[in-house]
Amino acid sequence: MRKIGKQEIEDMAVGAALLGTGGGGDPHIGKLMALQAIEEYGEVTLLDVDEVPEDALVVPSSMMGAPTVMLEKPPSGEEAIEAFQILEKYLGKKIYATFPIEAGGVNSMLPFALAARLGLPVIDADGMGRAFPELQMVTFYLDGISATPGVFADEKGNTALLSTIDNVWTERIARAATVQMGGSTMVAMYSMTAKNLKESGIPNILKLEEEIGKTIRLAKENNVNPIREVLKITGGFELFQGKVSDINRKTETGFARGVATFEGLNAYKGETLQLRFQNEHLLAQTEDRVLCVTPDLIAVLDAETGLPITTEGIRYGARSVVIGIPCNPKWRTEKGIATVGPRYFGYDVDYVPVEELVKKGVTL
Amino acid sequence: MRKIGKQEIEDMAVGAALLGTGGGGDPHIGKLMALQAIEEYGEVTLLDVDEVPEDALVVPSSMMGAPTVMLEKPPSGEEAIEAFQILEKYLGKKIYATFPIEAGGVNSMLPFALAARLGLPVIDADGMGRAFPELQMVTFYLDGISATPGVFADEKGNTALLSTIDNVWTERIARAATVQMGGSTMVAMYSMTAKNLKESGIPNILKLEEEIGKTIRLAKENNVNPIREVLKITGGFELFQGKVSDINRKTETGFARGVATFEGLNAYKGETLQLRFQNEHLLAQTEDRVLCVTPDLIAVLDAETGLPITTEGIRYGARSVVIGIPCNPKWRTEKGIATVGPRYFGYDVDYVPVEELVKKGVTL
Repeated sequence: MRKIGKQEIEDMAVGAALLGTGGGGDPHIGKLMALQAIEEYGEVTLLDVDEVPEDALVVPSSMMGAPTVMLEKPPSGEEAIEAFQILEKYLGKKIYATFPIEAGGVNSMLPFALAARLGLPVIDADGMGRAFPELQMVTFYLDGISATPGVFADEKGNTALLSTIDNVWTERIARAATVQMGGSTMVAMYSMTAKNLKESGIPNILKLEEEIGKTIRLAKENNVNPIREVLKITGGFELFQGKVSDINRKTETGFARGVATFEGLNAYKGETLQLRFQNEHLLAQTEDRVLCVTPDLIAVLDAETGLPITTEGIRYGARSVVIGIPCNPKWRTEKGIATVGPRYFGYDVDYVPVEELVKKGVTL
Repeated sequence: MRKIGKQEIEDMAVGAALLGTGGGGDPHIGKLMALQAIEEYGEVTLLDVDEVPEDALVVPSSMMGAPTVMLEKPPSGEEAIEAFQILEKYLGKKIYATFPIEAGGVNSMLPFALAARLGLPVIDADGMGRAFPELQMVTFYLDGISATPGVFADEKGNTALLSTIDNVWTERIARAATVQMGGSTMVAMYSMTAKNLKESGIPNILKLEEEIGKTIRLAKENNVNPIREVLKITGGFELFQGKVSDINRKTETGFARGVATFEGLNAYKGETLQLRFQNEHLLAQTEDRVLCVTPDLIAVLDAETGLPITTEGIRYGARSVVIGIPCNPKWRTEKGIATVGPRYFGYDVDYVPVEELVKKGVTL
């Protein structure tokens, strides 16, 4: 148990944006919301999952929708509270603590904003160990934990308590409604016991986020290369160094989809990297090789500062280093690959772990 | 109070399809579902709204979605029960009786199917006096009665309890979700007291439906012209006699939209009628005149039998009589016209009552 104040939030936001692989929302907005809530309501207690009673009701709080929409329409905070209240009333039980559903600029931070306002602790665990664009893409789903009964709510005051036969239906119905509700909603789904979270979640994700953020922040002061340090902490690999030569994106059916092209620099001169994303970066490939593919993590970092760049933050000409990080082993199962592997997203490549790809390369 | 058995259902189904102005779903399916439930569970008690205690909780049961979808995917009946149960649990009160939300082939009949199964009475009142395609298009809305808390449920077992800031939001959110859920759902919305229904509903709609159906059924036996009799009962007007020469329709965003063209016969020879519909027939016009426009009722009847023809039942070559019927006065208010008048549906004509249009004609 420890207290999370402003510096911790600043660091976590950076690490979350990196693990968010380009998605999970704008780190600036998420951070501002968390900082503002801590300023107003005080620091937030962070618990390890082992510190929570096994039968306690725990519920992640997250935003659903396109990050590009969120830039224009940040949540008020009220809708997250209302979603929790509706769920508590329905379940007839108090929510003991909240936690992030994923690592990402917004969804790592929103639980702190809500926790500060409600005086709840945050648990250091999530359901992805990275970010993903759809509701069923959580390790909880792999273990058969239902997303519903669950609530989604918009900033206008519209709410829905959903009960579905499986989590893919939750995604379909809530997504369609969310698009109607202005493109983003606050979601209270995957209510579970702390025991469920311990067994099916990914622990210590916030600690990792904070460590990444702190390392990047102190790199100059410590006279180290921030990207090399991040690779050490995460067990990741450098995939490419390049300059953005083309960026093509659109927001459709609630997602920010697109492709970014990087022209190689330094050791990569003459090579071209294509990075495909659907809210998150999902596939990095050169003309003849796949370098990294979902569910392994792909992050685009500013070549100088090491700061992560989101899909909507990629700008023409930006000098970047693209890195790949092995995903949590839960994703490397048959159901994991079926749920979040390349073919689910429509890419005609097989999943091969990034550590093998960087070793030998794979011809397309 | 009286009992509704199979003959009453047969007659009501015909009258409902006529007042449904081409929409409200296939009369055959709705009738079959009601008949089957009565066969299995016994006759249903029909109450006048005055016979219900003023503070009793009453809830209409209806189908949301495109009638063309409903032809392929009829409701199981279970989803309507589940919607009622979720609403009762949420409101903490037993539902005393149900009633139709609108006049139409399916939505006039479904309350009988549900009532038979649950042993509930049906109240002789509705919220339209005709059929309309959207959730907020009820006389209850004109009086500020909320559609939510309300439930929609599909035949697979997916349900949503919705709470919205107004009924137009209910429509938008439930419609988008319904499209995802296969194109049709069963809906339990506009829960109210019997006093609300008495003040804001349209009474004796089922009695009128039955009278219309019975008159058409017995016309041959009584040696009368069924269409002339229907005009007498409803206070309606003959608008056109013709043969369908063109029919153009598609199902999009949950609606059956289109336009049918009729070539004039008999006294109308040489004239052409265009009939525009969006689930319901909404605008009837010749080259130079509007003949009838929403919210007044437009019905297409088989020239020989007088039986009503739904929008999806209009066939090339069918000899038809098109009639217009004045709508309930509640619709002829400013809010009524704003809610269901021609401009809401995108038709660039003013609303003029059908009784004036047939008197003098209106140049486009």
